[in-house]
Amino acid sequence: MIIVLKPESTEQDVNNIVERLQHAGLRAHISKGEERTIIGAIGDERVLKEIPLEVFHGVEQVIPILNPYKLVSREFQKNDTVIETKGVRLGGGHFQVIAGPCSVEGQGMILEAATKVKAAGARLLRGGAFKPRTSPYDFQGHGEDALKFLAQASAETGMPIVTELMDPRDIEVVCKYADIIQIGTRNMQNFRLLTEVGKTSKPVLLKRGLSASIKEWLMAAEYIASEGNRQIILCERGIRTFETATRNTLDISAIPIVKKQTHLPIVVDPSHAAGKRHLVTPLAKAALAAGADGLMIEVHPTPETALCDGAQSLPPEDFAKMMAELAPLAAALGTQIG
Amino acid sequence: MIIVLKPESTEQDVNNIVERLQHAGLRAHISKGEERTIIGAIGDERVLKEIPLEVFHGVEQVIPILNPYKLVSREFQKNDTVIETKGVRLGGGHFQVIAGPCSVEGQGMILEAATKVKAAGARLLRGGAFKPRTSPYDFQGHGEDALKFLAQASAETGMPIVTELMDPRDIEVVCKYADIIQIGTRNMQNFRLLTEVGKTSKPVLLKRGLSASIKEWLMAAEYIASEGNRQIILCERGIRTFETATRNTLDISAIPIVKKQTHLPIVVDPSHAAGKRHLVTPLAKAALAAGADGLMIEVHPTPETALCDGAQSLPPEDFAKMMAELAPLAAALGTQIG
Amino acid sequence: MIIVLKPESTEQDVNNIVERLQHAGLRAHISKGEERTIIGAIGDERVLKEIPLEVFHGVEQVIPILNPYKLVSREFQKNDTVIETKGVRLGGGHFQVIAGPCSVEGQGMILEAATKVKAAGARLLRGGAFKPRTSPYDFQGHGEDALKFLAQASAETGMPIVTELMDPRDIEVVCKYADIIQIGTRNMQNFRLLTEVGKTSKPVLLKRGLSASIKEWLMAAEYIASEGNRQIILCERGIRTFETATRNTLDISAIPIVKKQTHLPIVVDPSHAAGKRHLVTPLAKAALAAGADGLMIEVHPTPETALCDGAQSLPPEDFAKMMAELAPLAAALGTQIG
Amino acid sequence: MIIVLKPESTEQDVNNIVERLQHAGLRAHISKGEERTIIGAIGDERVLKEIPLEVFHGVEQVIPILNPYKLVSREFQKNDTVIETKGVRLGGGHFQVIAGPCSVEGQGMILEAATKVKAAGARLLRGGAFKPRTSPYDFQGHGEDALKFLAQASAETGMPIVTELMDPRDIEVVCKYADIIQIGTRNMQNFRLLTEVGKTSKPVLLKRGLSASIKEWLMAAEYIASEGNRQIILCERGIRTFETATRNTLDISAIPIVKKQTHLPIVVDPSHAAGKRHLVTPLAKAALAAGADGLMIEVHPTPETALCDGAQSLPPEDFAKMMAELAPLAAALGTQIG
Repeated sequence: MIIVLKPESTEQDVNNIVERLQHAGLRAHISKGEERTIIGAIGDERVLKEIPLEVFHGVEQVIPILNPYKLVSREFQKNDTVIETKGVRLGGGHFQVIAGPCSVEGQGMILEAATKVKAAGARLLRGGAFKPRTSPYDFQGHGEDALKFLAQASAETGMPIVTELMDPRDIEVVCKYADIIQIGTRNMQNFRLLTEVGKTSKPVLLKRGLSASIKEWLMAAEYIASEGNRQIILCERGIRTFETATRNTLDISAIPIVKKQTHLPIVVDPSHAAGKRHLVTPLAKAALAAGADGLMIEVHPTPETALCDGAQSLPPEDFAKMMAELAPLAAALGTQIG
Repeated sequence: MIIVLKPESTEQDVNNIVERLQHAGLRAHISKGEERTIIGAIGDERVLKEIPLEVFHGVEQVIPILNPYKLVSREFQKNDTVIETKGVRLGGGHFQVIAGPCSVEGQGMILEAATKVKAAGARLLRGGAFKPRTSPYDFQGHGEDALKFLAQASAETGMPIVTELMDPRDIEVVCKYADIIQIGTRNMQNFRLLTEVGKTSKPVLLKRGLSASIKEWLMAAEYIASEGNRQIILCERGIRTFETATRNTLDISAIPIVKKQTHLPIVVDPSHAAGKRHLVTPLAKAALAAGADGLMIEVHPTPETALCDGAQSLPPEDFAKMMAELAPLAAALGTQIG
Repeated sequence: MIIVLKPESTEQDVNNIVERLQHAGLRAHISKGEERTIIGAIGDERVLKEIPLEVFHGVEQVIPILNPYKLVSREFQKNDTVIETKGVRLGGGHFQVIAGPCSVEGQGMILEAATKVKAAGARLLRGGAFKPRTSPYDFQGHGEDALKFLAQASAETGMPIVTELMDPRDIEVVCKYADIIQIGTRNMQNFRLLTEVGKTSKPVLLKRGLSASIKEWLMAAEYIASEGNRQIILCERGIRTFETATRNTLDISAIPIVKKQTHLPIVVDPSHAAGKRHLVTPLAKAALAAGADGLMIEVHPTPETALCDGAQSLPPEDFAKMMAELAPLAAALGTQIG
Repeated sequence: MIIVLKPESTEQDVNNIVERLQHAGLRAHISKGEERTIIGAIGDERVLKEIPLEVFHGVEQVIPILNPYKLVSREFQKNDTVIETKGVRLGGGHFQVIAGPCSVEGQGMILEAATKVKAAGARLLRGGAFKPRTSPYDFQGHGEDALKFLAQASAETGMPIVTELMDPRDIEVVCKYADIIQIGTRNMQNFRLLTEVGKTSKPVLLKRGLSASIKEWLMAAEYIASEGNRQIILCERGIRTFETATRNTLDISAIPIVKKQTHLPIVVDPSHAAGKRHLVTPLAKAALAAGADGLMIEVHPTPETALCDGAQSLPPEDFAKMMAELAPLAAALGTQIG
């Protein structure tokens, strides 16, 4: 951590800061430049963070040098984390497509969706039982019934299930049926929920918050990891910007940055990022080409009757077409899908 | 709701949409322009929202006309909502200052803070027992002990307490001690938490999400109201933008917009918006001048030892100075503080 | 254009608006819903735009239905525009890579850069003579000398030149040497400059503004087209968001949106978008996969001595490696580079 | 400037960097921490900026310590700059209101506007002769005729004129009539235009760019100052964010930040920030309360016939009402308007 002093700071200001650092078991390294004196604080940055150095007399700014996350960093673990569930591997060279409807609307519907996305090449099934909806008047999901339907579809197709957990009180019931627990965008900084899933042994798919920086996203992953669960899949799903032509702006650069900063796999959800069906395939291709470890795609047997996200859901035939277009691209990149 | 058709749409497309609308009990009103045909869908927009009209053949775009919230709208209730707790009124011409530390660090500390902010003119006491922290390694709050210390400080000073609820499982313990329940920025779309506080009889202070539009913020308030609890205070605390000179960008325009759109009171938290102490007083003045119903200010007896948010906390003497500067401003505006 | 009236609007308000519309030669179509009356204004939206309907009594909001651009729209011209200069075609299935240094630092340097990028597969040469720099104290480019060096490099390699015009007073000298005139990000809404290049017969590469919506970007293109010059290449180079891990956020979704809305070709500049060398290749691949018509890449013979943008420039060997990786990807997509 | 090295950097990497710094006449100060080695580069940061240290082997990040602007900084000049033109002072305690229409639509119209805003307390007259318009089909201003009408209105009322310069080729004609030259939002980084106005002796009103950070805005001011013209007024007019309830988000925090960082006066334009008439007065009050040195307000004799910006223009009676409401506020703040 670097502490930059104001031009008018005094010897006394420097001494106070140095003393406070030493009191906390840290070393101070003073460097007097032409226009500013700076103090390098050497030692555990976690200890440093707890001292509000910005309010010490004479301080102009405080600049952290290290990233605040540790367990999820590439520095901590060099090798890619590979998530394995029911024989399906994701990460470390294994590219997977997770597909299925926004919400599980019924037993037949989810089975139809599962069968069709599997036939097209998806290896994991998504489907919502508990739905976070912007309006209290919108459909909120079928709850445990939906989880049961998902489990049946999983039993029949052999596909592991990804489904969202919204409330720490539902953790038992969700863990009973789900193979991978999804933490949604709006809960990325629901720290209690992160702590709870950190205590389970299920892999967690952690969606990026709408306005979360990559650093904050990795700190959310660190919450989970710090409880002992390091089976984390990051999911980029678009960030909020001024542009209104898309629902969100897919941050494609997040892929190479995340791959460099962390050992965790990253998948991309182009359906939620774009909010429009015709953008899903081009964005899916871009994500594959940029080095993502997988995709998460909304597919509905009949989008025009969907209870949520109809506008961005692909019908099964469009999904199959997308998968057919991704295959040669993957081959050219030396990757294999599924 | 307005449905705009593509130039190449057919008579059949129009008929399909009209039929679907009529099937849902709505009326359709067709208008053929020179370049586009548009269909006005007349009836309950909630019913309309459940039909994914965007994916119907021939549709170019779907434009909602009405705001999605109802109970919290000024259209639904003309008169300002006034929140009253332990004899303190906020809203409808009653301007109040809520003050106190980021977190309750101990019994003596919170009592000292309470006594000093009360002396300076604050009428409500804030203090965190459960703290949402970006890092799992940061101080997470003293939990129920902190609530007890708050209650003692309240008993001694007569100030009602505002404190944050992070987890639906804590609702009983928080309601036992708190007078106003705070929903934090990161939980603005934690819909389960909103539903829970909607079932209580305590007033709720709802902070705006970091990247929440005003519309989404009011929809979050609607979640609470739809459960029966209409005692809601909105709290603007800065939004996320590209500017890095401040921690967040205080959206001062939100004040007059919210006052026009809703009957709920709005307070402003300049401490979190700016993240820097020297900005608190100018922003507090701006909020008062723009028509806010109150302020929420972080005050710490000794900011340089604060366990969180030290950089933005005012020491009691600066807070007293701020209050002294606000008084003549309030008088000039025809308002009274406290 | 749709005019939504306030609930409290009167018959007189409706009549005033209808009269004003009719006076302007437009037709009005009134539709009374349950909660709002709306007026559809039928006729030329350009005429409509000149009437400030928002300030008419009783008006709640005014919603445009049509896009404000015409000549550059896909509706106006179905077929892709292909830009051809000195035998090199870009757009309509022709994918091209434009490469070269940020600024032309000398005669030998630009020739070396040109020779090397050509050997790797680039068909167009970029290089700055007039440089828009954030600081007045930074290197501002070698001006006409740089243009001459570019012309020599072009003569020796046969590559057409892309270079930036910053000032309408330089248009003659730039047109004397350049094959394609670049309008930079900071000048995207320098309307006088757009008008001037609209009067020339040179193709124009129009960079997207840092915070320009796609609609505003296409309106800037419309400025050029409305003067008679329809040889326009759009260049996506990242937008400004809250994320600080990249210099800008590459808006990859802009590619399929632009391809749908307009007939103009679009190229992507990953160098400026990311601001970091290690991100250039993954973003270039993503752009190709998402359907871009080309790339614009900063290449410097020795980045560590570069007078500008060294951090994001590829050395020639890295550029060659990137081109080698793009080739099989292009083949898999059914495209050919060059 | 601080250079942070990668954990895997070598002694050789350190030596190369130190050598390069020394070669440029700078000193290096090495500090080895537990997890990183950092090098403090001591000397002129302008020299430092020209070395692309990010691409040197072993470098993780480069962190500047000093602000890049100098002449406009508070560090360079402690006392507030006061702008004086035709006897009207702005800055350093002199609060002024600049008012007038978006564009000068005719001789009678501008005189009427001038007379009325003067009667209400404005001391400077604004009006556009050259208009930057998003669409090439919109009204572009009356050019020199408009300047003449402005000059007549100025002669009759004694009010100095603020008007926009868009093109370096118009500088002579604009300087002939204008008292203060406005540089518009879209030209904030039109560096050639900044250089030109920097050579004149007229005060310059520099609007903040739509997505300009405060640092970039002050660098634009530095461009002007570096040419010798230090008579600069900064104008905050809203930044681009995700919020669509306002046209832009007024960055009220910019006022205290700018006042701290620079000696230049700052005025606020709530009309353009909000884009809606009913927001102008609350935002004007907020700006005054936050410490601005003035306001810039769009006033049109008959907004419903305005050729541009009708929706945000105040009619003269509303402007007079606003001024009447500002007066007691100013008095309470110890300021005087006009």
